[in-house]
Formats: sequence, structure tokens, C-alpha cells
Amino acid sequence: MELNHIKGFIIDLDGTVYAGQHALAGAVEAVRKLQQYNIPFVFLSNRGNYSRKMCQEKLSKMGIEVPQHAIVLSSTVTAHFLQQHYTGEAVWPFGDSGLEEELRSHHIPIADVPESARWLVITLHESLTYRELNLAFRAVRNGASIIATNNDRMFPGEEGDCIDVAGMIGAIVHATGESVAHVMGKPSALMAHTALAALDGLQAEQCVVVGDSLGSDIGLGKQHGMATALVLTGNTTREQALAYEHQPDLICDDLKQLVDHYIEQLNERG
Amino acid sequence: MELNHIKGFIIDLDGTVYAGQHALAGAVEAVRKLQQYNIPFVFLSNRGNYSRKMCQEKLSKMGIEVPQHAIVLSSTVTAHFLQQHYTGEAVWPFGDSGLEEELRSHHIPIADVPESARWLVITLHESLTYRELNLAFRAVRNGASIIATNNDRMFPGEEGDCIDVAGMIGAIVHATGESVAHVMGKPSALMAHTALAALDGLQAEQCVVVGDSLGSDIGLGKQHGMATALVLTGNTTREQALAYEHQPDLICDDLKQLVDHYIEQLNERG
Repeated sequence: MELNHIKGFIIDLDGTVYAGQHALAGAVEAVRKLQQYNIPFVFLSNRGNYSRKMCQEKLSKMGIEVPQHAIVLSSTVTAHFLQQHYTGEAVWPFGDSGLEEELRSHHIPIADVPESARWLVITLHESLTYRELNLAFRAVRNGASIIATNNDRMFPGEEGDCIDVAGMIGAIVHATGESVAHVMGKPSALMAHTALAALDGLQAEQCVVVGDSLGSDIGLGKQHGMATALVLTGNTTREQALAYEHQPDLICDDLKQLVDHYIEQLNERG
Repeated sequence: MELNHIKGFIIDLDGTVYAGQHALAGAVEAVRKLQQYNIPFVFLSNRGNYSRKMCQEKLSKMGIEVPQHAIVLSSTVTAHFLQQHYTGEAVWPFGDSGLEEELRSHHIPIADVPESARWLVITLHESLTYRELNLAFRAVRNGASIIATNNDRMFPGEEGDCIDVAGMIGAIVHATGESVAHVMGKPSALMAHTALAALDGLQAEQCVVVGDSLGSDIGLGKQHGMATALVLTGNTTREQALAYEHQPDLICDDLKQLVDHYIEQLNERG
């Protein structure tokens, strides 16, 4: 496929750059190559249980150094959304500590008790307890509306498939009978716009979305006019991709193959 | 209301006999009075995270001594159901340890790993961890069908409203996209039949169901031809009861009031 019109990369993280705490083969090299060639990119992840700071540190440990504004997480986009549309309204975060860290870094007020929250923000909670489940439950029972950072069902973990945010959402929704007011994550327009804003000046048609998820990554590109490249290092097999209703523009073994292919075309253009 | 035709009591536990670790006012006295007058009764609870042994010990600490066959829990009925319909099929229990204890006491085989389970049995899990959530998730991802001991949404705890089995069910169902094959708890026919079997020889119309829940307790009685008495010591207010589509035959302040009223009529008959 021709990549001559592409000026910027929107790159998924889990299953594309790393799995768990380990960088995927070639990923570090690929990102460094983009940096060497001064090609604009942004990491765009449905992770809502990290703050950008935590994500920056995680990438740094793997040998990838990027500024925080090159990272857009669903927690980041949730914070922007609350800032813009519900200024000053107190939230109760239900998820790992990175969510609260990201909300606080955007000056979103955190409720003292769940009963006084206007919003319950749900994300992945890998250190979930029954007590915390009850606090989230009481927020909604007392009138808080539900925002989910994303609605992904699962992700591949080191010991096997792991339950993602959908599990936390299901627990609260099924027990309260309330539904989710807003879902922030990919493939939403909010995620697409925030990623483009981080690639200042680039238009959707000048960007390629790279990721391992048909629904989140390829879906995002298809819905918002970007080129799409599926990598086979995560959730999706080539067979699943070929059976999908919206074919990705490219299927690559990994991120490195895509970047090498792009750089090659760039060099050929001279 | 005339209680002359009543020969046996089917008595709910949470919100009727006790709340948390404490007996409700008058409840111990009421149960003792039934025993003194030799009136058959059975405790019938949607709790699936206890075994009968644990429940017997809990009641004993409160001063109520009953044999195990006078206790029917949703974990008990789940074990009977599996014994009868799916003999020898391995299960993965997802809930507090009482569920596994009750299943084992009925010789239900417990799978070594979630991947080899034919059934995932879900009940309340007050010591839930993310790891256990993932094990349950993997059971269903690998083909296990879902049985829930019950589908209650909440119960009143000592620190406020607590999320009940519906939370655990929602987590698994929403993350896997699978639905629940069987729900065991009240107001099911299985619970009604097991309770009647424990009151050997009594017919439905000779029994009164006493409890604090309109859906579970009053619902059970209405659906299966028993008299119904709502107590106001738990989940339901008098106003809620009066607005309910299926009015209970009696509304009592507590279990003691009902038993006193019954014994009074018994004494009048001489």
C-alpha cells in the first residue's frame, strides 16, 4: 500500500508497543526510527487506569522516551470531557490509582464520599476489592451518573486473558439497573480529535492508526477518515482481520514492519 | 388475618432473623417459641456464599439451635440441581468459600483449573479479587455455562447498601457476552420445592413464607400457593409493600409479631 500521503502515526500501546511490562519485539526500534526521522506520532490507548505520567515512566523503562503530550489515554480524554462539559462537578473514581491521578492532574474535583459524587468514572481496576465495588455502587445509588473510560471486554495478560473495564461496568450496571451515560474510549470521536490535536496541524487523512484491535483501532480509523494498519502482535489474528466487515488498509506482523515499510517509501521519494 | 390453616413456617434469614452478624430484635425469641410449640419451620435464604454448616454456626452464636436440614440456602439448591441434572460435571465456584464448601458437601466435583469446568457457579463474593474475577472469566471463555445461586441486586450491610450477586454476574456476563443459563434463588420453584421437602409432608397451602423482600419472599409465596407475611426489619418499607402489585397477606413489624399472633390464635383454638 502507498503511504506517501501519510504524515503522522497514531499508535496503540497494549498489544502494539508492549504486552504487560514487556516491549514487543522491534517496537522500541520502530518508535526510535520515527523519532530519528522526525515523524510526528502520538500514543493513543484505551487504558484509563494509567495517568500519562505513569505511562511515560513505563515507556521510559522500556527505552522509549516521549513527552507527556505525545500520550493520550482514555483517562486523559475523560478528564478533558469533564473539564469541558461538567466543570466543577465532583467525581468518584472507580479503578486503579492512575485514573484518579490523571483526573487530579486536570483539576477535576474528587468527591470526599461516594454519596456526594455527580459522576462515577469507571475504568479497569486490577486491585479491585468488594469494599471499593460497594463505594462505587453507593455513588450511583445516590444519583451519580456513569462515565466509562472505555468498554473493552478483555486484554491479553501474562497469565492468560484478563477481564477489562466491561467487567467493572457490568458489575455496577447490573446491580444498580442504571446505564452508562458516556463511554470515552476508542473508537470515539473524542479520542480521534484528541489524538489529532496532539499531532498539531495534521488532518485525519494524513494519519495512519496502528493497533491490534479491529473494533477500537481499525474502527477508529475507519470512522474518522484515517488510514488503518492492523498489527498481529495482540488481540487479533490475520483470519479474524480478513473476516472483518471493515478491512484494515494494511495488515503487518508488527509495528516495526509498518514503520520500516513507511521509511523505505520515504527514502525512495528521496 | 386467619392463620388457622397454617402448619409450617418458611423463614427468610437476612433482614428477617438477622442483619450482618446480629440477630434482629425478638427474632431469637420468636424462633424459640416455634420450637417450644413444636411448629415445623425451615430457614430459606438466597445466600449462596454460605454453607449450611456455616449458617448453622452463625445462628448458634445468636442463640438459635437448629439441625442442618432446617436450613435451605441457594447454595444448597444449586448443589441439588447439579447433582440431579448434571451428575459428575466439574464446576468452578466464583464466590466466598461457603459456596465451595456446600458444593463439596454434596460431592459436586470442583474443577482443578477454570479451563476444565463445565459450569461456572456464581454467588456473592465479599472477598473478591481481580485475579479471581479473571479465573471465573476464563472458565466461561473456555466454554463453561453460567449458574447463579441468585440474582439479588443488593442487601443492607453494616456500612450501607452492599452490592449482591448481581454485581458478580454483571461483571462476567458483560465481559464475556454470555448469558446466565440458570438462576437458582427465590422466588424459583426449586427453592419452594426444597423448602417444602424439608417440612416433610406439608403442602404449600399449609405454609406461610416470612421475609423482608417483596420479589424474593412474597414473590415465592404468591407463585407457589403459600400464605405470605412481609416483615419490616429489612429491605422493604410499608409504603413499598402497599404499592406492590402482589400484596402480602400480612405485614408485620417483625418476625416476633407474626409468631406471637400465630401462637395466640393457636392458644385460642385450644
